[in-house]
Amino acid sequence: MPKTDLWFTELQTDKLTIGLRINRTIHREVTEFQTLDVFETQQYGNLLVLDGCVMTTDKDEFVYHEMISHVPLHTHPNPKNVLVIGGGDGGAIREIVKHPTVERAVLAEIDGRVIEASKQYFPQIASGLADPRVDIQVTDGIQYVKDHKGEFDVVLVDSTDPVGPAVGLFARDFYQMVFDCLKEDGLFVAQTESPWVNQGLIRQVYSDIASVFPQAHLYLAYIPTYPTGMWSFTMGTKQYHPLRDRQPARVSGTKYYTEEIHQAAFVLPPFVQELTRQ
Amino acid sequence: MPKTDLWFTELQTDKLTIGLRINRTIHREVTEFQTLDVFETQQYGNLLVLDGCVMTTDKDEFVYHEMISHVPLHTHPNPKNVLVIGGGDGGAIREIVKHPTVERAVLAEIDGRVIEASKQYFPQIASGLADPRVDIQVTDGIQYVKDHKGEFDVVLVDSTDPVGPAVGLFARDFYQMVFDCLKEDGLFVAQTESPWVNQGLIRQVYSDIASVFPQAHLYLAYIPTYPTGMWSFTMGTKQYHPLRDRQPARVSGTKYYTEEIHQAAFVLPPFVQELTRQ
Repeated sequence: MPKTDLWFTELQTDKLTIGLRINRTIHREVTEFQTLDVFETQQYGNLLVLDGCVMTTDKDEFVYHEMISHVPLHTHPNPKNVLVIGGGDGGAIREIVKHPTVERAVLAEIDGRVIEASKQYFPQIASGLADPRVDIQVTDGIQYVKDHKGEFDVVLVDSTDPVGPAVGLFARDFYQMVFDCLKEDGLFVAQTESPWVNQGLIRQVYSDIASVFPQAHLYLAYIPTYPTGMWSFTMGTKQYHPLRDRQPARVSGTKYYTEEIHQAAFVLPPFVQELTRQ
Repeated sequence: MPKTDLWFTELQTDKLTIGLRINRTIHREVTEFQTLDVFETQQYGNLLVLDGCVMTTDKDEFVYHEMISHVPLHTHPNPKNVLVIGGGDGGAIREIVKHPTVERAVLAEIDGRVIEASKQYFPQIASGLADPRVDIQVTDGIQYVKDHKGEFDVVLVDSTDPVGPAVGLFARDFYQMVFDCLKEDGLFVAQTESPWVNQGLIRQVYSDIASVFPQAHLYLAYIPTYPTGMWSFTMGTKQYHPLRDRQPARVSGTKYYTEEIHQAAFVLPPFVQELTRQ
């Protein structure tokens, strides 16, 4: 039988694609909120796709999950209560529970099917969900934040792209609610897309976060399966400074995060710095 | 007339592609050495392609050209004689001649058609080629290096991928010739592909350079149109250390390079550090 050549293609912008050769489709469904696909790719192992967009892969997931978690958690001297909004794959939770200070890690994911698919097809990513400190809430993250004022040390907004169910997670009103759900020395981080192809979004989000929090900071990581490979995260913090207050590493065995990477990630090329000017 | 949808696709590995929507083909030819295409893309402006591989684009070329040039030139306290092997588009030369210390910049490019195409279709990239200090040699870079011993302060190996005409530029014998063409305090940098998809090559090149030069150093930059967006450069240096001997910036108006980026580019995630262990 002639070999069948199968490709998954993501339209990353209307002018740019990534193509990944796949061995097979492992799973497809339409959940209450979005389409959910799992493919076995040859380059990056298993791939989770929501509404046609790459979410995570076996091979490169460590970058995103280490960098969205360890940077804010090492900025806070004693993070005990941590909330993840979105992040149903469990990768951020897996990194959070590596911190011995953490007493409670809440996952507020709107789509329970993402959690189940991750447990089934990405067991190494979902592994932290079994930790006894983890509280899984299948619920609207915005409502959860509204209902839990002053409760958290660190919040991570581990959302999909700003379309579909995640659109409300990129709004100034939401950042105010996150501010209110944090303790008086709390801080938060959101994933905020690519400086090459989402300049308008980054500029708006940075400006909104800087208008709600005393400090806003942008940092970068190399993520090969996200558009352009350069990914930004934006931190809003009430008190602690990510460089001046950085804590010694509480975790070991990371493949991307180190104390030096923590510092270097905040060094922005001028064309990215420019997006943070008010 | 219905809209025609045209895409350029690069097979970055046999499992991974990038796709760029194009308005039109500007130029195609087969030179003595390789195929040469120029496309007008919607995402990144004009795109130069050699043997099917993305070489440079209007929008992101500054990252590669600033980082291959300014890191080594700011490691040397007084770079006067600089050689670029490959680099026919002229982008590295444009950055080199910004350094007031530079008295002579030689471009040894094997394919004169690349130089002509760049002058015609990428005038902003090729602009430095008109500088009176520039000496353009359409010749085999390996032969040029053999014939000019002890002559250069800094050498840049601005090559295509290690297939076709550039394959000899990724060999230990060649690094020894580069060593010999440098003055006794000279240093060189080569572009050395992606830590995500070219691990074997990086490991070999790093090991070869470390066996020829007293010091080898790897650094990184975000280049969205190259495979995975994470690009490595490897420096071999006889005397000066890229961090301890870093010079104050001699250039201004850069969009990627700064003194802080120079330092941060050498901070490697553990999965990249691992490639430099002997």
